[in-house]
Amino acid sequence: MSLDIQWLDATAEDFSTRLNALVAWEAVSDQQVLSTVQSIIGDVRHRGDQALVDYTCRFDQRKVTSMTELCLEAEVLQEARQRLSVGDQQALVAAAERISRYHEKQLQSSWQYEEEGVLLGQQVTPMERVGIYVPGGKAAYPSSVLMNAIPAKVAGVSEVIMVVPMPKDVVNDWVLAAAAIAGVDKVFTIGGAQAIAALAYGTESVPKVDKIVGPGNIYVATAKQLVFGQVGIDMIAGPSEILVICDGKTNPDWIAMDLFSQAEHDEDAQSILVSPDRDFLNRVKESIQRLLPTMERKGFIETSLKNRGAFIWTPDMDTAIAVSNKIAPEHLELSVEDPQALLPAIRHAGAIFMGRYTAEALGDYCAGPNHVLPTSGTARFSSPLGVYDFQKRSSLISFSAESASEIGQIASTLARAEGLTAHACSAEYRIVTKE
Amino acid sequence: MSLDIQWLDATAEDFSTRLNALVAWEAVSDQQVLSTVQSIIGDVRHRGDQALVDYTCRFDQRKVTSMTELCLEAEVLQEARQRLSVGDQQALVAAAERISRYHEKQLQSSWQYEEEGVLLGQQVTPMERVGIYVPGGKAAYPSSVLMNAIPAKVAGVSEVIMVVPMPKDVVNDWVLAAAAIAGVDKVFTIGGAQAIAALAYGTESVPKVDKIVGPGNIYVATAKQLVFGQVGIDMIAGPSEILVICDGKTNPDWIAMDLFSQAEHDEDAQSILVSPDRDFLNRVKESIQRLLPTMERKGFIETSLKNRGAFIWTPDMDTAIAVSNKIAPEHLELSVEDPQALLPAIRHAGAIFMGRYTAEALGDYCAGPNHVLPTSGTARFSSPLGVYDFQKRSSLISFSAESASEIGQIASTLARAEGLTAHACSAEYRIVTKE
Repeated sequence: MSLDIQWLDATAEDFSTRLNALVAWEAVSDQQVLSTVQSIIGDVRHRGDQALVDYTCRFDQRKVTSMTELCLEAEVLQEARQRLSVGDQQALVAAAERISRYHEKQLQSSWQYEEEGVLLGQQVTPMERVGIYVPGGKAAYPSSVLMNAIPAKVAGVSEVIMVVPMPKDVVNDWVLAAAAIAGVDKVFTIGGAQAIAALAYGTESVPKVDKIVGPGNIYVATAKQLVFGQVGIDMIAGPSEILVICDGKTNPDWIAMDLFSQAEHDEDAQSILVSPDRDFLNRVKESIQRLLPTMERKGFIETSLKNRGAFIWTPDMDTAIAVSNKIAPEHLELSVEDPQALLPAIRHAGAIFMGRYTAEALGDYCAGPNHVLPTSGTARFSSPLGVYDFQKRSSLISFSAESASEIGQIASTLARAEGLTAHACSAEYRIVTKE
Repeated sequence: MSLDIQWLDATAEDFSTRLNALVAWEAVSDQQVLSTVQSIIGDVRHRGDQALVDYTCRFDQRKVTSMTELCLEAEVLQEARQRLSVGDQQALVAAAERISRYHEKQLQSSWQYEEEGVLLGQQVTPMERVGIYVPGGKAAYPSSVLMNAIPAKVAGVSEVIMVVPMPKDVVNDWVLAAAAIAGVDKVFTIGGAQAIAALAYGTESVPKVDKIVGPGNIYVATAKQLVFGQVGIDMIAGPSEILVICDGKTNPDWIAMDLFSQAEHDEDAQSILVSPDRDFLNRVKESIQRLLPTMERKGFIETSLKNRGAFIWTPDMDTAIAVSNKIAPEHLELSVEDPQALLPAIRHAGAIFMGRYTAEALGDYCAGPNHVLPTSGTARFSSPLGVYDFQKRSSLISFSAESASEIGQIASTLARAEGLTAHACSAEYRIVTKE
C-alpha cells in the first residue's frame, strides 16, 4: 500500500506557512450544540433527578425509572474488579501504584514567613468534592479513570464522584474495576451534558462538586465550558498529538509504531516525525507501509496519517527543537542518544519522553506521570493534570500594630490615588501618629 | 440616617435558606452581549489593526487613524511616572517591591528523581508572552497593574503586554507609572472585547499572547470566556466580597470602616460581619450610622450594604467559621485575639487577614500577596493570582532498556484491554523476551 504522508522541508521558503496549516485546529462552535446544551443544563437545574432519568433513557437507550438504578454502590465496583483475571487486576494495581507514587511528589504544602512584623504565606488545602467524567461506550478507558481520580485522591479530596454513561446497559468491568482501585467514592451511570449539569449544580441524588475533570464529546466539552465559573474545570481537550524528534539511529519500526500509537486514537489525531536524517525518514516510511496493513485499527491510522501526519526534515537538531517549540506538542518523544542535553532548549511540551526506550505508550498507562496533557499547542500555557489541580491556596496576611502603622501609609497613599477613601480610612485607623 | 442591613441568626430554622439567598450570585448571560462580542472577535481576526482603530474611535470616543497612535512607548510611561510627586512614586515603588518579594516565594522549580531505572519529573518553564487587561476610565487602578504584571515578571515571562482603554484621550498617569515600575514591556491603549480579541489572535501590531489576565466589564469577561482554550485566562471575577469574623473586642469603628472599604467598590459588592457577640453587632451598626454620612462614596456603600450586606450572629466561634467555610469568601478578616488558632479550621477563602491590625486595605495595596482573588465562592476551587499562573510544567519520563522491558508488560496488558493495539505493539517492541 502506498501512503500519502506530507513531507515538509524546514529550509523551504513556505515552511512556516505549511507548518501553521499543518497544526491548525479549531473546535467547531456549533450554535445548535450550544443551544441544546443550554436547554439540557436548564432542565437539570429545574427538574433535577427526573431530568437525569429522562435524558438517560432517551440518549443512552436505557429503561430506568429512578436515580437509584443509576447509582453504583462500592460492592458493584468490587464485583466488576473480581470478574477480571488476576493478571489483569495486577496490571491495573501496578499502574495505580506507580501513578500514585509519582503524583505524591506534586503535593504542595502551606508556607509562612515573617518579615519586619508582617507574617505572610499561603495555606494550601484540598478541594472537598470533585467530579470525574468518563466517556462510555467504545472510548471507555480504565487508564483514564486512574489518571483523573488518583491525583484528586492524592491531593486529599474527600469525595470523588465519577459519572460514566452505560449505553444499552452495557457494563465495562475494566472501567468499574479501575474506579474501585483508584478509590472513587461514588459512581453514577449518567453521561452527556446532563451529567455535567448534575455535577455542577447538584440534584436530589447527585451532590454538587467543586471541580469537574475528564474528557468527553462535544456536548460534554460545551457543557463544561458553560458551567465554568460555577465550578472549576480542566482544559477542553482537542485531538491528541505526538511529535517525535529522532537522530536517525532508532529502529525505524519502533518509530513507525510510536506514530501509529497516536494515529490510532481517531481520524483527527496527529503524528509528526522530525529528523535531520533524510534517509531515516525514508526508512520510517517503508516501515509504515509494511506495518500498516497488520494493524487492527488501520482505518483510523491511515486517515489520520494522511490528513494530519507529517515528516519534517530539518538541517540540524537545533532546528528540530525550534520546530517542536513552535508546535508545543502534547507528547514529545526525544528518540536520541542524550535527551537530557536537549532538555534546556525545550520550551513547551505536555510530556517529554526521553530516549529510544521511552515509548509514549508507557506514559499513557503506567510510567507514573499523568496522561491528561495539554493539546493543540496549549502546552504554551497549561500543564499536565496533577495534584495541584485539586489543591487551592489562601493568602495569609498578619500585621503587628507597628507594621500596620508603618505600611498603612503606603496603602493610604495608593487608596487615595484610586479615590477609594474608605480603603484609605480603614488603613489610617491603624496608623499611630508619632508624637 | 437609619440603615437597613440584614440580620441573620445562625440558630434560626431558616438560616441556611437565608444564607443561600444572601450569597446567591449569577452573572447575567445576555444573548445580546454574547453576539456582539462574537462579532467583534470575528472582525478583529479578519481586519486586524484596522478593526481595532475603528472600534477604539467608536467606543472610546477617540480620533485616531492608525495603531501607531494606540501604542505607548517606554518613554511615555516614564514621563507619566515623572509627573507623579516623589512621595507618590515612592509609595508605588514600595508596594511593587513588597509584592515582588512575596511573589518570589511562589516560584516553582523543575524536579527529577530516579527509581529503578526510570527517571521521572517535571520541567517548569515560564510562559513566553502574556497580556494584561486594565480597565480604563473611573476604574483604572494602578494597584491592579502591579498585581497582574509583577507575578508574570517574577515567573520569568519575556514579554508583558498591557492593554488599557483611554476614553476621550484621558491619560491616567498613575496607571502608566505603575506599568513603568512593574516592568510592562508594551502598552496599547485599546480596551473592550476588541482588545481581548487582539491579544488572543494577534494583529499586525498587537502580538498574540499565551495568556490573558485582568478584570473588565461584561464585554471583556465574555470575550475572555470565548477565547479560553485559544489562550489561557484567569478566573472571571464576580463582585468583590469581605467576611469579617470578630470576637467583639475590636474597635467597632474599625470594623465598620473595613466593611465600608468593601462596599465602596460598587453596588454589588458584599460586606458580611459575623460575631458571637450580639452587643458588638449593635455597636458596629451604630458606627456605621455615624460614619456613613462622612464617606465620599456613601452612595455605593449604602446601596451595597442594604442590598447585599449582612450581620450574622452565631452562638460561638466554631459556628462563625462554619458559616465562613460555607460562603468561601474572597476576603476573610479574622479580627480576633489568636487568629493562628483558627487557621486549621478555615477550609476555603481567597485571602485571610489575621488579627485586629490587618485591614483588608493593606492587602489590597501593599502587604505583598495578590489582590486578585477568587470571588463568589470560587475559593472552593481556585486560588489567588500568582507566579504559578504564569509557569507551566512538562512531564519528564525516561526509561532504561531494562525498565522499558519490565514496565512495558503492564502497558501492553492495559493497552490491549482498551483495544489500542498500536499502543501495545509500541510497548512490546521494547520488551526483551528472557531466554
